[in-house]
Amino acid sequence: MSWKAQIHEWLEHHREEGTRLLQSLVRMPSTQGNEQQAQMLIAGKLYDMNLEVELWEPDGELLAKHPYFYSPRSKFTGSPNVVGVLRGSGGGRSLLLNGHMDVVPEGDMKQWISPPYSGVVLDGMLYGRGASDMKGGNVALLLAIQAIRELGIGLKGDVIFQSVVEEESGGAGTLAAILKGYKADAALIPEPTNMRIFPKQQGSMWFRIHVKGRSAHGGTRYEGVSAIEKCMIVVSELLELERVRNARIDDPLFAGNPIPIPINIGTISGGNWPSSVPDIVTIEGRIGVAPEESMDAAKAELAAWLDRLQEQDEWFAVSPPRLEWFGARWVPGSVDTGHELIGVLTEQYEAVLGSKPAIEASPWGTDGGLLTVVGDTPCIVFGPGYTATAHYPNEHIALEDMFRAAEIIALTMLTWCGIEEEATK
Amino acid sequence: MSWKAQIHEWLEHHREEGTRLLQSLVRMPSTQGNEQQAQMLIAGKLYDMNLEVELWEPDGELLAKHPYFYSPRSKFTGSPNVVGVLRGSGGGRSLLLNGHMDVVPEGDMKQWISPPYSGVVLDGMLYGRGASDMKGGNVALLLAIQAIRELGIGLKGDVIFQSVVEEESGGAGTLAAILKGYKADAALIPEPTNMRIFPKQQGSMWFRIHVKGRSAHGGTRYEGVSAIEKCMIVVSELLELERVRNARIDDPLFAGNPIPIPINIGTISGGNWPSSVPDIVTIEGRIGVAPEESMDAAKAELAAWLDRLQEQDEWFAVSPPRLEWFGARWVPGSVDTGHELIGVLTEQYEAVLGSKPAIEASPWGTDGGLLTVVGDTPCIVFGPGYTATAHYPNEHIALEDMFRAAEIIALTMLTWCGIEEEATK
Repeated sequence: MSWKAQIHEWLEHHREEGTRLLQSLVRMPSTQGNEQQAQMLIAGKLYDMNLEVELWEPDGELLAKHPYFYSPRSKFTGSPNVVGVLRGSGGGRSLLLNGHMDVVPEGDMKQWISPPYSGVVLDGMLYGRGASDMKGGNVALLLAIQAIRELGIGLKGDVIFQSVVEEESGGAGTLAAILKGYKADAALIPEPTNMRIFPKQQGSMWFRIHVKGRSAHGGTRYEGVSAIEKCMIVVSELLELERVRNARIDDPLFAGNPIPIPINIGTISGGNWPSSVPDIVTIEGRIGVAPEESMDAAKAELAAWLDRLQEQDEWFAVSPPRLEWFGARWVPGSVDTGHELIGVLTEQYEAVLGSKPAIEASPWGTDGGLLTVVGDTPCIVFGPGYTATAHYPNEHIALEDMFRAAEIIALTMLTWCGIEEEATK
Repeated sequence: MSWKAQIHEWLEHHREEGTRLLQSLVRMPSTQGNEQQAQMLIAGKLYDMNLEVELWEPDGELLAKHPYFYSPRSKFTGSPNVVGVLRGSGGGRSLLLNGHMDVVPEGDMKQWISPPYSGVVLDGMLYGRGASDMKGGNVALLLAIQAIRELGIGLKGDVIFQSVVEEESGGAGTLAAILKGYKADAALIPEPTNMRIFPKQQGSMWFRIHVKGRSAHGGTRYEGVSAIEKCMIVVSELLELERVRNARIDDPLFAGNPIPIPINIGTISGGNWPSSVPDIVTIEGRIGVAPEESMDAAKAELAAWLDRLQEQDEWFAVSPPRLEWFGARWVPGSVDTGHELIGVLTEQYEAVLGSKPAIEASPWGTDGGLLTVVGDTPCIVFGPGYTATAHYPNEHIALEDMFRAAEIIALTMLTWCGIEEEATK
């Protein structure tokens, strides 16, 4: 019986165990600062599998000195990273498998059809915050490693499994693992791509723009300048900049994506009295950064675009919109589509699912940017789960996809890292 | 020496006393719920002048039954109205003089060059919240009555002086005085018209519009619908409705007013995460109601205008903007420009200032709408003070205008109400 057949059978026999593990993880609300319980569960699994385990809280002071550090917090007490190394016998390629354990808050409770941390299974779907993003992917990694361990398959190359914190807030967990020295010949992150392969990912940064007006009584509003009306001009200009930036994108991996690198305006607020002319409106948003673009170049382009307004509008000449960069940012990343890990993964995908995988550019950032750019480890993203449900009420994952992803990843590990003894049992 | 000359002289000799009275009133921060101290000072002045004084807290339960009642509160404990009646000898026309004692909050403290309740005088200007809106006008009324009393002039018609609460929040104080039975042949309110005469005033109402979107991750924002972009359409439509409504205004009293009855959008808020597509944006504003228009007609027109969006936009067909009416409202009012009080006031204005007064329609609502429409007392507005500084930091009034207004109003009282004995002293 081939390793492939044995891995398939092992996974078939561990469906209940895998589902229970995902349920346990989803039932631990591992929002920022509350990851410890879930991380201890993972550490326990890694000890059980006899991996070399390291568990540590990221060092905020050390991180703060790094140019790629961003986090809304400076201390990581109660938020440990966990790494487990499956040491190879030598002579093979190493593989880094990375997933994040932090989840975004549950949002509007009223929109959840079942409690947000229920882990309830309905029609093959497991529901709960983090099911897709990305505890399902983490379980797929653990199942792949466990199958290889329990079947007694010896790998030549090292496998480094990382369960990190802080991905949702800018990647400080993965950065901390990079600073610990963890690197490999290639990396895979099973974020919810819905089983597509993403060799490239856009980055993103948050911006805030303050648009001024001049207050006046609403009954004589012509004596003032409405910051809401002025803000509408700024919003239109941002939409125009988005068109200009996206018109430049000709990468076939973005084919079919209506807006490869969106500028999203997420919040707006201003004014304080219905019958006064509002004198300030503030918008906050994110600008997508193309996989091969530098974050500084994207910042400069947005700033210059807003500066043009001073020539186009008398009011803006006197009171220009004020731009700030704040909050989270995700580094863009790009791995050549000819990279061997993509070839191996594609082969195994076809072997398991009988069709070709979609290869696309990611519409969002992941910790893969940091691994590729800062961690010297080319990273691709491939995993089960649905982007569309991540961050929203009723997040869920198809369990079938989780098990299929585990099978594809296990087979990819075998081919990429090499098998110590080629003899089948 | 004519009464006119004596009144002028009396006022010249009472400049310091009048200034001190305005300072005392400005130094009492009579924001909503805190009017009692200032009202007691007024009541004391009225007792001193031997008027028939009534002091009472409006009855919230009684008011609540009235169709024109609006207030954010239902109890008026600590917020008394004060009325003083100068009873005439009979045979003359009665005059109601109304001013409000409530002031709006001081707003952003940092923008005040001196403390907001200082009453400091600089270059003939008295500074402080309420100086223009409208304690200066109230002092002008009191000086006019005091001059007539102290000079021993007997009037034929009654003069009813009202110092009311709650004008800034929809007029419950004046409504309470109407319900007490106070009425007269005509009324004058010395709101800060900067010495112009306003026979007509627009009304206004507050509205709130909720504009829905559909949330999505900012990186795939094309999967969502931005409530900010949809709200921009609603804002444009409101500006268009404003154009349509104002194009109908052909009253010469609005000549030179760029937007006679503005629609002002005062606040905007929506979205909760920079990298999510916002699913709801709410705007709040005020719609001006033409002097001869009904408030219901204005409401219906705005509602119908928004309904059109459902035909123009697929998204709005499914998720139409939701309109609510909330908060304050001010009844519009109109007095014929041929009204005799306007004639008398114009004559006295010319006699005192040597030029013709500007006669215009008011760009904002006052309690005059209630007096005209509900109180059966045709009301015009004329007073010292600057609209442009009312409600804003560094509110101030020219003391010279306050004394000139007092003189014009005193002479108007003489002519309107009639003098008991025509003999000059």
